[in-house]
Amino acid sequence: MNGVERHSGVRRDAAGDRLARNAKPDPEETPMTTNRQILLTETPQGKLAESHFKFSPDGKMPEAKDGELLLRTKLISLDAANRAWMQGATYRSAVEAGTVMAGGSVSEVVEAKAPGFAKGDLVFADTGWQDYAAVPAKTAQKLPKMEPLSHLLSVYGIAGLTAYFGLLEVGKPKAGDTVVVSAAAGSVGTIVGQIAKIKGCTVIGIAGGAKKCKLLTDDLGFDAAIDYKAEPVGKALRKAAPKGIDVYFDNVGGDILEAVLFGMNNFGRIACCGAVSQYDGAAPAHGPRGIPGLIVVKRITMQGFIVMDYADRHDAALAELQGWVSSGKIKVMEDIMDGLENTPKALIGLLAGDNVGKRMIRVS
Amino acid sequence: MNGVERHSGVRRDAAGDRLARNAKPDPEETPMTTNRQILLTETPQGKLAESHFKFSPDGKMPEAKDGELLLRTKLISLDAANRAWMQGATYRSAVEAGTVMAGGSVSEVVEAKAPGFAKGDLVFADTGWQDYAAVPAKTAQKLPKMEPLSHLLSVYGIAGLTAYFGLLEVGKPKAGDTVVVSAAAGSVGTIVGQIAKIKGCTVIGIAGGAKKCKLLTDDLGFDAAIDYKAEPVGKALRKAAPKGIDVYFDNVGGDILEAVLFGMNNFGRIACCGAVSQYDGAAPAHGPRGIPGLIVVKRITMQGFIVMDYADRHDAALAELQGWVSSGKIKVMEDIMDGLENTPKALIGLLAGDNVGKRMIRVS
Repeated sequence: MNGVERHSGVRRDAAGDRLARNAKPDPEETPMTTNRQILLTETPQGKLAESHFKFSPDGKMPEAKDGELLLRTKLISLDAANRAWMQGATYRSAVEAGTVMAGGSVSEVVEAKAPGFAKGDLVFADTGWQDYAAVPAKTAQKLPKMEPLSHLLSVYGIAGLTAYFGLLEVGKPKAGDTVVVSAAAGSVGTIVGQIAKIKGCTVIGIAGGAKKCKLLTDDLGFDAAIDYKAEPVGKALRKAAPKGIDVYFDNVGGDILEAVLFGMNNFGRIACCGAVSQYDGAAPAHGPRGIPGLIVVKRITMQGFIVMDYADRHDAALAELQGWVSSGKIKVMEDIMDGLENTPKALIGLLAGDNVGKRMIRVS
Repeated sequence: MNGVERHSGVRRDAAGDRLARNAKPDPEETPMTTNRQILLTETPQGKLAESHFKFSPDGKMPEAKDGELLLRTKLISLDAANRAWMQGATYRSAVEAGTVMAGGSVSEVVEAKAPGFAKGDLVFADTGWQDYAAVPAKTAQKLPKMEPLSHLLSVYGIAGLTAYFGLLEVGKPKAGDTVVVSAAAGSVGTIVGQIAKIKGCTVIGIAGGAKKCKLLTDDLGFDAAIDYKAEPVGKALRKAAPKGIDVYFDNVGGDILEAVLFGMNNFGRIACCGAVSQYDGAAPAHGPRGIPGLIVVKRITMQGFIVMDYADRHDAALAELQGWVSSGKIKVMEDIMDGLENTPKALIGLLAGDNVGKRMIRVS
C-alpha cells in the first residue's frame, strides 16, 4: 500500500474537513541539521510494544544523489499494514530489525536531483519514520497542495482509494444489497460504509465499543452498528441483517469473518482487504470454519485486493470521492497526533483499535 | 446438483468409451410389481456406515399422477454431495431420516402423464435409490439415447459439466499456467486435468495412492501427481510447481486447500467445487490457515460454484466436451457397480476414495 497512488485532479475542499480534528498551521519551516529517526530494533514475535522501537535524536542527515529527492516529512500515515510488514515479505519486502521503521508520508521536497520535481513540491513517499529521507524520485508521487493537507492521507489517500476500489470493484454492491464492513470506524471502514449508503445499500458496521458504534449510526448514516466487544457478532448480524448479507468488506479476518460468512446470501461477495485480527501476534491462527464448505454451497466469491492494483484508475476514483466530499455525502474522519516521537505509540494504539478514522502523525 | 442439466446435442461416440469398464447390455426389461428401496434410517453424525441405511425389498409401487412420470431407474449416480445432503439444507433441502435416500439417476419413462414425454424416453431425475419413482415431469430432463449410457452420468453428466464450468469459468486458466486439482482421480478431477492440458497448462493432480497417481500421469497426461497419503503435499507442490500455482480446482477443502494456498501465485484463482474432506464427519473443521491473510497479500480469488448456475450454457459445453471425447483428448473414466442393494456400500467407498472416475450403480 505504499507509494503508488496519484492525486492529480484533487482540489482543496472546505466541506470535507468539518470533522477533521486538527487544523493548526504547519510549524516552523527552518531546516534542521540532524535527522530524528525511529528504528525498529527487534522483529516482534507477539504483540507490538514500544520496546521494539528506539528513538534516535541525532541520526545522519541524508543526501540526495542523482535521481533522488531529499524530503522533509510532514505527515506520517499509520496503517495496520505497518505491523504486517514486520512479519515478512508481503507485496513489499519485510521491514528488518535495526533499520528505520518504514512508513508512507506526505513530505515536502527540500532538494530535487531529478527532473519533474522542484523544491517545495509535495509528494507521497515511503520515507520511513524520520524527519528527512532521500528517496528515488521514481518512487515518489507528486501531490496537489490542499488544505487540510491531512486529506491527502485519508479520503484522497490510500484509505479512500482502498475503500473505493474494494467496495465497488470487488464487493460490487447493488442498490438494496445489505453491506457489512468490519473495523467500521477506521480509516477505510468509515468511507466504505458511506459509499455503500450512496449506492443505496443497507449498511451495517462492526466496531469495538459503544462510542464508535454511536458515531457510525448517528454521524455517518450507517443503518446499524454492532459492538463486537459487547455482543456475539453472529447473533447481532441475524437481527441487523434479516435478509442476509450480500457484500462483506473484511478488514479483520478471524472470528468476525467466520460469523459473517455464516450469514452471507447466495452469490455474496467478500472483499478481503486486511486481517488486522491476525497481524499483531505470532503464527497465523486457523482460518474461519465454513471455508470452503459455505463458499461452495452459497457460491460466494472471496477476493483479495490491494489499492496499487488499480493505480491506472486512481484519478477517476479521486474525482468521484471529491464530489462526494464536496456535497457532504462523505464525512472525513481523521485522528491526528503530533510529534515524531509518538509514532510507535500511535501505531500500537491503532492496532488496539484506539483510533477513529485515519490516524496520522504530524511531524513538521 | 440434481436435475438441471440438459443433454440435447450429445451423440454416441465410440472413442469415448475405451476406458469404460463395463458395457454389458441392459438386463431384462419386464416390469416388476414391487419396488425395492433403500431408506436412510438415521442422519449420520460421524462417518457414514451401512447401518445408516435399510434395504426394503417390497416397497410400494408408485403411481404417476397428472403432470408426473413413472420412472424405472437404470443407473444411479454416486456423488460426494449425497453425503453433504444428509448434513442439512444446502442448495437442496436435507435428506431426512426415514425416507428413501435421494440421488440422481438415468431412468426410463414407464408411463408419462405429462406432455413432451413418452414411454421409453430416457431422463435424468432425482428418483432416489429405488427401482421405480413417480416424479414431477418438470424436474426431469430428457436425455438422448447413447451407448454407453453411463457417459450420461460421467463426461456428459454433472461431473463433466462441473469440471468444464468450474475450470474454465471460475479457474480461468491461461496457456502456460500451472493448474492443480485435488481428488484428481475422481469423476470431476479426471476431466478437469484433461481440459487443463487441452488449454496448454501444466497440470498437477493430488490423489490418494500410487495406483491413482500412476493413472493420472501415465494414462491421462497429467504432468505430475502427488500422493497425499504418502508425502507432505506442501513440499511436493513446491517441487512439482516451481513457478507457483495459478489455478486450484478444489474438491476437498481442509489441509490440502491450506497447503495449496501457501503455494499460490499472485492473482491466483481457486475454484471451490467441494469439500469432501469435511462431509463425512460431525461439526465442520476449522478452516485453512492463511485465510484471509494470503488471500489479501496475493490478491487471490476463491469462488464457489455449482453446475446448475450455468444451466443456460450446458448445451454449448456438452458440444465441446463431445468434440474432445471424439478426438481422444478426453478419456472417460467410469467405475460401475451392479445392484441396487450395493448403493450404500458404493457411496461409503466413494467417500473413502475407493473409486477411479465416475462411480455409479447399474440397477436395471
